[in-house]
Amino acid sequence: MRIALDAMGTDAAPAVEVEGALRALNELEDDIELVLVGDPDRIREELERHGASDTPRLTIHPATQRVSADDPPASVLRKKPDSSIVVGLKLHKAGDVDAFVSAGSTGAVMAASLFVLRPLPGVERPSVGTFFPTRRSPTLLLDAGTNVDCKPRQLVQFAHLGRVYMADVLGVESPRIGLLNIGEEPTKGDERAQETFSLLQEDEGLHFVGNIEGRDVLEGPCDVLVADGFVGNVLLKFYESVAQFILGLVRDELADTVDSPPLDSVTRLLDYSEYGGAPLLGVNGVTIICHGGSPPKAIRNAIRVAAQAVRSDMVADMAAELDA
Amino acid sequence: MRIALDAMGTDAAPAVEVEGALRALNELEDDIELVLVGDPDRIREELERHGASDTPRLTIHPATQRVSADDPPASVLRKKPDSSIVVGLKLHKAGDVDAFVSAGSTGAVMAASLFVLRPLPGVERPSVGTFFPTRRSPTLLLDAGTNVDCKPRQLVQFAHLGRVYMADVLGVESPRIGLLNIGEEPTKGDERAQETFSLLQEDEGLHFVGNIEGRDVLEGPCDVLVADGFVGNVLLKFYESVAQFILGLVRDELADTVDSPPLDSVTRLLDYSEYGGAPLLGVNGVTIICHGGSPPKAIRNAIRVAAQAVRSDMVADMAAELDA
Repeated sequence: MRIALDAMGTDAAPAVEVEGALRALNELEDDIELVLVGDPDRIREELERHGASDTPRLTIHPATQRVSADDPPASVLRKKPDSSIVVGLKLHKAGDVDAFVSAGSTGAVMAASLFVLRPLPGVERPSVGTFFPTRRSPTLLLDAGTNVDCKPRQLVQFAHLGRVYMADVLGVESPRIGLLNIGEEPTKGDERAQETFSLLQEDEGLHFVGNIEGRDVLEGPCDVLVADGFVGNVLLKFYESVAQFILGLVRDELADTVDSPPLDSVTRLLDYSEYGGAPLLGVNGVTIICHGGSPPKAIRNAIRVAAQAVRSDMVADMAAELDA
Repeated sequence: MRIALDAMGTDAAPAVEVEGALRALNELEDDIELVLVGDPDRIREELERHGASDTPRLTIHPATQRVSADDPPASVLRKKPDSSIVVGLKLHKAGDVDAFVSAGSTGAVMAASLFVLRPLPGVERPSVGTFFPTRRSPTLLLDAGTNVDCKPRQLVQFAHLGRVYMADVLGVESPRIGLLNIGEEPTKGDERAQETFSLLQEDEGLHFVGNIEGRDVLEGPCDVLVADGFVGNVLLKFYESVAQFILGLVRDELADTVDSPPLDSVTRLLDYSEYGGAPLLGVNGVTIICHGGSPPKAIRNAIRVAAQAVRSDMVADMAAELDA
């Protein structure tokens, strides 16, 4: 399979991307071929730095433009048609590659993916899924801020997208679907939550485990946590900050007792780079989006995830599941 | 002033209430008189245990019934008219006491307060405020789950209620009002957040500091955080659980290095009993609600808060502010 990697996405592009690509080729299955999309001179420079100018299964595809955080996402396609994001996605659309990985601006990657790849039939609002570390395995939060003011039926679509993703890419058997809510009973919550509860419960294609309260999320009671993007985004951003906040308090408190307290397991659990990027779910293709501050390991892991999505026929499975 | 204390509210009633009351009388201003409402025999028993049978400024007012967690809140007034909650609130309504403190079921205390004390003119939905520990001073979260599907104008009412509370009871000069949202710009968020932003910004009676994202909440950028009760409740419950989760990870990690790591400052910061209960804001009276699992210190602190609300004429100030 061939995967296009936007080489110009991270804050330290293309150094991070090149290193991540080389690690992926070295460490992952050898049916993976990578196409680095971006400034050929800069990419070659980085390859040389690694003594990797003639790496098998790695090619370069030129793109002269680069999307910045200041570019309005909706204008990228028109204003930067030769950007690494647009060029990479067009390679995917044309069938030259099977997936696209980018650490560029989430909004731009999402908008361009929607336009170039198009939503799958039956999907009103494609959604970027984000992993949420828990006591058990990570939970896929859908939606995490891409879509607000969602209708109950759209939340049910998220549940199906998440179900296929967890089954195909993570290998979870019968993924458990939970609904973020403010009480356990079906009658709890706002109007949207109550109506969504009914729809999820009636849906025989889903393993719905019920309402999940804020206090229960970290127990890992579900594999896919369905939420409107407003509350999902608040929760996700708060999680990132509260972990750092508590760790900071702990470090201060322990400063007199222990030199550099060994908090590795905590730090590792909360390290997003372990999770391999956020999948854009519901488009006719595989797009994996990484943080702009990603280290090479995160790029490598995103490539691993993209490969698994391709290998499992995720897009075909989603199309079959949603187009009912 | 006289404050009625529901003596039958906590899980360990009336032992905890009696101890909290004695601490309050001992430690707080001596213009406070307490009326313990509940089973006189049980209350006297507890007073005797403390050798405090003849405590000045403490009287007992009998109530033969007790509200349990199983009683539907809406039926308490009708089914348990002689419960400590209803009796205490009626003392307040009649002007025999100036405030009411209870650690009974939040739903029941709230429903009975609404019915007996009535909402203030201009307040559509009274709201239970909850304190949120931050790096700076605690933030008052309004709403924390009492009211979902709120209209923008109702969120603005919360802002005013919170403003008066923070100014009168906490002595905060020009309390900063923030709106929980998923981005900083005015155009971010769902429809409700966008419209609320406009209303808050136009309101000359409020010191509105703008949108607060999930990641910024813990920096303490505002004194009052306005939110619909759905997202507010998810955030609050998540906060309680994530702190325990991270502390648990830290303890496990440090177990080999330090015996019982000294995490006092963290534990203290997250100890709700410091905050003295949650005020029910927007009714024509002072109701302070404590956790059912409150220790005596939390009861004492709730009495302190109630006294400050009375002393500052909080209800009159809210009435003046809202009835515009």
